[in-house]
Amino acid sequence: MNALDSFRALARECNWIHTTASVLGWDQETYMPPEASAFRAEQLSWLSARAHELATSPRWLELLEGALAEIPAEQQEVRLDLQEMKRRYLLATCLPVELVARDTKTSSLAKHAWAEARKSGDFSRFLPHLSALVEINREKAELWGYEHEPYDALLSCFERGSTTARLSAEFDALRPALAEVAKSAVERSRTRHKPLPAGPYPIAAQQAFNEKVARDVGYSFTAGRIDTTTHPFCTNLGPRDVRLTTRYDENDFCSSLLGVLHEAGHGMYEQGLPADHPGMASCDSVSLGVHESQSRLWENHVGRSRAFWEKWYPVACEHFAALKGHSLDDFMTHVHEVNFTPIRVESDEATYDLHIVLRFELERGIFRRDFDLAYLPAVWDESFEKLFGFRPPNASQGCLQDIHWSMGAYGYFPTYTLGNLNASQLMQAACREPLVAQGMARAEYVPLLQWMREIIHRHGALHDPAVLIERATGEMPRAAYHLEHLRRRYVTGE
Amino acid sequence: MNALDSFRALARECNWIHTTASVLGWDQETYMPPEASAFRAEQLSWLSARAHELATSPRWLELLEGALAEIPAEQQEVRLDLQEMKRRYLLATCLPVELVARDTKTSSLAKHAWAEARKSGDFSRFLPHLSALVEINREKAELWGYEHEPYDALLSCFERGSTTARLSAEFDALRPALAEVAKSAVERSRTRHKPLPAGPYPIAAQQAFNEKVARDVGYSFTAGRIDTTTHPFCTNLGPRDVRLTTRYDENDFCSSLLGVLHEAGHGMYEQGLPADHPGMASCDSVSLGVHESQSRLWENHVGRSRAFWEKWYPVACEHFAALKGHSLDDFMTHVHEVNFTPIRVESDEATYDLHIVLRFELERGIFRRDFDLAYLPAVWDESFEKLFGFRPPNASQGCLQDIHWSMGAYGYFPTYTLGNLNASQLMQAACREPLVAQGMARAEYVPLLQWMREIIHRHGALHDPAVLIERATGEMPRAAYHLEHLRRRYVTGE
Repeated sequence: MNALDSFRALARECNWIHTTASVLGWDQETYMPPEASAFRAEQLSWLSARAHELATSPRWLELLEGALAEIPAEQQEVRLDLQEMKRRYLLATCLPVELVARDTKTSSLAKHAWAEARKSGDFSRFLPHLSALVEINREKAELWGYEHEPYDALLSCFERGSTTARLSAEFDALRPALAEVAKSAVERSRTRHKPLPAGPYPIAAQQAFNEKVARDVGYSFTAGRIDTTTHPFCTNLGPRDVRLTTRYDENDFCSSLLGVLHEAGHGMYEQGLPADHPGMASCDSVSLGVHESQSRLWENHVGRSRAFWEKWYPVACEHFAALKGHSLDDFMTHVHEVNFTPIRVESDEATYDLHIVLRFELERGIFRRDFDLAYLPAVWDESFEKLFGFRPPNASQGCLQDIHWSMGAYGYFPTYTLGNLNASQLMQAACREPLVAQGMARAEYVPLLQWMREIIHRHGALHDPAVLIERATGEMPRAAYHLEHLRRRYVTGE
Repeated sequence: MNALDSFRALARECNWIHTTASVLGWDQETYMPPEASAFRAEQLSWLSARAHELATSPRWLELLEGALAEIPAEQQEVRLDLQEMKRRYLLATCLPVELVARDTKTSSLAKHAWAEARKSGDFSRFLPHLSALVEINREKAELWGYEHEPYDALLSCFERGSTTARLSAEFDALRPALAEVAKSAVERSRTRHKPLPAGPYPIAAQQAFNEKVARDVGYSFTAGRIDTTTHPFCTNLGPRDVRLTTRYDENDFCSSLLGVLHEAGHGMYEQGLPADHPGMASCDSVSLGVHESQSRLWENHVGRSRAFWEKWYPVACEHFAALKGHSLDDFMTHVHEVNFTPIRVESDEATYDLHIVLRFELERGIFRRDFDLAYLPAVWDESFEKLFGFRPPNASQGCLQDIHWSMGAYGYFPTYTLGNLNASQLMQAACREPLVAQGMARAEYVPLLQWMREIIHRHGALHDPAVLIERATGEMPRAAYHLEHLRRRYVTGE
């Protein structure tokens, strides 16, 4: 075997370990009996040690370098694949073991402290942990390296190639217009909203309806399935095994269905990735921002569109007797209900990105040392008020609401809004294809999925996300399309 | 760490791998989407290579020897534990890699050939594969070693310490009496049998009923669960994670319930094993014959007893409207229906062991070279007729019916009957305890399970099965109790 084949074999082996851990993780969330959890943690920790051992081994780098040396410049995609594998190797190996151990321990303690602090609303209990994690992430940023500021290094961990400067430009363009759109949208929704009939929406009927819709939009059930969990997710257990989960609310079938469309968006991306070399970057998703573009596209652009419900609302009415006499027009005011809330995860399509802009600006400020961490609650509340026009009632509904910072994930939040921006820009480009546009109007999504497969999915992680979006849409990522989409849906039309 | 602790840590690691493979195997049979199978095979093969690597490593033997050297004779149980681990190590490592590879390849081809041969009823298509597998198993027997004849080595692979001579003595004692009991039982059942009402027995109601019964007899659902598969099984995914599966027949709730009791018998044994050192013999089941004693005990001694149904038949009637007006007496004739069939897996409690006696005698003959393998169908049919009084209609319902020989499993069949004999002998001994006997009469099984836990489960694989049975019952395994049980249930009483 040449070095390329040997390296691919090694990457495949590493992927067996990761996906095996995913099977165990999926089982843990879905069917595992409660007493099994301690032993399951041992099994998972053994697997993660093996994967780490393999992917940081000298043999790994040796074969990778060997492969890069033997592949000529003409084989550009193979070289891009190997270069991305090398970037990931360096990210994983440049941190000293001591730092990784300290990071793991600190964030494990921080998660407990955060949960306690959130419960009591007492930020001071979380502060020392937050400080420690921020310092550790500064250390990591120094080791990973950056051009302008430490936060760049953290951002590009989740969104390859993104920088504070570029994101600031995008988000700064978004901010005032977004605040305005959100305000108008909330006012308009208040005057129009008709509540969903009280139900019940039996779970078995929701399951049947969800599955019908997921199948119709193109999620493959021979390479996937849907199960039930408290926190919905999508997980990749192998190239042809991508599973979703959802939860059910007997008073609202809509939340589960839109959740399934969201996860199916993630799932169809994974199902559409190349499968010839599992474990290589060419067969892997590229970034959180692109992944989220797929989920938001199917959840929001498809699942909240009038055309979608023109086809599916009659089917919903067959499944749920409670909808009887409730018109499509009334129902659409529920699908498009918009409101301000202090809580990100309870917010809607029109206000969500404001929550992210807030977090991005605060994270940037933290890593620029713009303010002392002790003042975070005050800074949060003040910034929140500027965007939303009111203050959160307490820290639990303010700066303590999200788990991310307690896990040491800084630079993660912006990818949610990148996902929204990408989704709108991709949708706009896709609809330039007459087949896609016709399909959207008839709620037939084969052309749309085909377009995504071709223009996003099949490229795996070969290119930087921004490059991928530019190749797909003809221009660099920009906020205008998303604003236009929100305005059209929530302010002027639909 | 001393050698003992180090060795236990290594055994635990090996157990993580085995149980991880069990999770993947369970998922494969229950929920895995169809397109995932090829990649799943790769994941499983990676795990099995890692487990093999570990359990046959020089370090394994070194630590094992080290531990044996440091443990004084007084710590008898620890020594027994280590000795059994050494016996297993030697069994696994004394076969040359070439032989193991040839064995794997030959049985993989044989399984296909067997399936084809069974479909067409053409034994000659299976013959060359059978010959090759028998020869390979002779080679294995020579390498493993034996006292009197090669078949001993194969038997003791599945049932530690058992020999052809001892089994012959047991089965020879059983054979004529069993044939007589079976004949009387079949005649009696023919005159009495009232068919089960046609149903339907809705699957959801069967699931609810099965779960209620399984929980009541003592199977733990916080350390287990029941799912649906074509071929029911019980699998151990960790010390506190033992899962069952069953299948449903909408025309007969009884088959699924008795299947669940069978698997729950296996499951309660696994749930009752010590959990302090996973991967060590002391925390493992001892043999197929003891495992099967537990499944048969709960399926037959409990699940087919009149006392059991006096409690549960009224509950069944609440679950299944189809039973309305059908009396318990009538129902019991269905539970005790007995008939001759050429097919082992379709046979019943009273005739099952005849099928096993046949296979034991033929396997013994094969390894003694009593007849040429080309004559196996003729020898089968002739032996079958002597036991059953009629000949199988064709080879597919004769010597080609079972998968075992095509998998290279010789010496496996007898453990089914050992399970039945052990179950009857254990049951008899358990009922000498007044609390157990009273419980049996009231269909309350806490005392019975407690007795099994104490006398069988908690000993893991420390002792030879025959020793375990002798310690539990006061005498060496013998067939008399089983015959007595069958006679009482199927000929004279109940």
